[in-house]
Amino acid sequence: GQASVDAEVFTALCDMEYLVHMEKDLVESLDQYIQQEEDKLNKIKTFQSRIKEVSQMAMEEPSTHLHHPVNAYLLVKRYTRDWPLLEALVQEDTAEDFLYNLTKVKESFPSDEDYMGAGKALVRLQDTYDLSTQNIAKGMMGREIAAANRPELGYTKSPELSSEDCFELGRLAYIDQDYYHCALWMEESMARFQPDPTSDLTKDTILDYLAYASYQQNNIERAYQATKELLRINPEHTRAINNMKFFEKEMEKSQNLVAPPKDED
Amino acid sequence: GQASVDAEVFTALCDMEYLVHMEKDLVESLDQYIQQEEDKLNKIKTFQSRIKEVSQMAMEEPSTHLHHPVNAYLLVKRYTRDWPLLEALVQEDTAEDFLYNLTKVKESFPSDEDYMGAGKALVRLQDTYDLSTQNIAKGMMGREIAAANRPELGYTKSPELSSEDCFELGRLAYIDQDYYHCALWMEESMARFQPDPTSDLTKDTILDYLAYASYQQNNIERAYQATKELLRINPEHTRAINNMKFFEKEMEKSQNLVAPPKDED
Repeated sequence: GQASVDAEVFTALCDMEYLVHMEKDLVESLDQYIQQEEDKLNKIKTFQSRIKEVSQMAMEEPSTHLHHPVNAYLLVKRYTRDWPLLEALVQEDTAEDFLYNLTKVKESFPSDEDYMGAGKALVRLQDTYDLSTQNIAKGMMGREIAAANRPELGYTKSPELSSEDCFELGRLAYIDQDYYHCALWMEESMARFQPDPTSDLTKDTILDYLAYASYQQNNIERAYQATKELLRINPEHTRAINNMKFFEKEMEKSQNLVAPPKDED
Repeated sequence: GQASVDAEVFTALCDMEYLVHMEKDLVESLDQYIQQEEDKLNKIKTFQSRIKEVSQMAMEEPSTHLHHPVNAYLLVKRYTRDWPLLEALVQEDTAEDFLYNLTKVKESFPSDEDYMGAGKALVRLQDTYDLSTQNIAKGMMGREIAAANRPELGYTKSPELSSEDCFELGRLAYIDQDYYHCALWMEESMARFQPDPTSDLTKDTILDYLAYASYQQNNIERAYQATKELLRINPEHTRAINNMKFFEKEMEKSQNLVAPPKDED
């Protein structure tokens, strides 16, 4: 019932408050690292543009350039002064403090099991409160949760979920063979997809899971459409090519021979 | 005479042309390093702004924040996914190729002796062609040199000298006990001084050399003025305080008891 779900989600609330404060300190340490790294990079770029300018001038006609004693002096000066300074600057370790601060607290980090637990609890709550995937992903479930659950705490915001957050929730459902929620979250992941340089997630990976989960839900039409879209993006995807043939036949007769996506975990 | 000066400056012209080409390759390698480092830093900043936003939201009221299951899930996800990814990203070594390319060619670098030789040759040529320090520093000696020396090569440009370049030429003269050229180049270094984050050179260091070289040239008035300026910038400079007392007396009677600046080389 509601109380037990609640208990499971919030078991380690004390620990989690600790994690919030710990993260604040980590963010401050990260800020300092970024500042130091930017200062270092700006110094390096000052050296670079100075050296580059005269190096390009020299390359136009090296022997003429070097007959000018100022140029000869400056060339030797760059090799005996600037390049060694630049080398020392590049070797400067700006990450030491941040990595030390991170390592120091690492044993307090939640485990992969904690992560799976929190994700599955969230997917279960979705049913308990009958919330749509879209509204959860938009950060709009706070009011319902608060009203039904802890009205004394009032309305709590949550940030919007990224495509990658939704994909992860879908993948947790997939590991649980919960293809119903897997398909819902993969649809939401597709809807929220946008290029992100910090994530390796690609549309074809999402579509691969979506197709398989839809197929397991006997939604052959959606499995077919998702696979078609996958092949449009990545025409070389061998398993999708084979699945596609199968779905095409399956659209007429009913069979159960599709290979699932390989999960790396 | 002119021919022998010429021979000395241009002895290793072949080697120096090689140095010009080698520097072009080093600049390219440095460009690649800077590009990789910027990409890495941009990824880290994307992580940072994402984590910081939700971390600040959480810190407003941690327990209320965590009663929202999406927030609890995202917190655990940051600790099990984002922070480890960020750690790996910070640890990424972008400098390896550049430092390898630099080390590979380091034994071809000119020595400190080559550097002193090139600097002293330049200072000597200044007398040979009767060139003003200002014109050399402005990159305006090419025409004179070319006309007098190698007219077939035509007019060769040189870049403007920085305050630090001029200081270095002055310091080479100082090491040679050539206080006449030392004072000239220190004056030029002062005239060209501007704050530079890549250089440790300060005005009081230049003024210290300038005062001592002027004193050695029996220009007590200039030594007194330079030391006064030095003490305006750095009133705690012990040796300058003592020299100042001396110069004040010396402006009346003539003595020879000033301590020279300590040269670190």
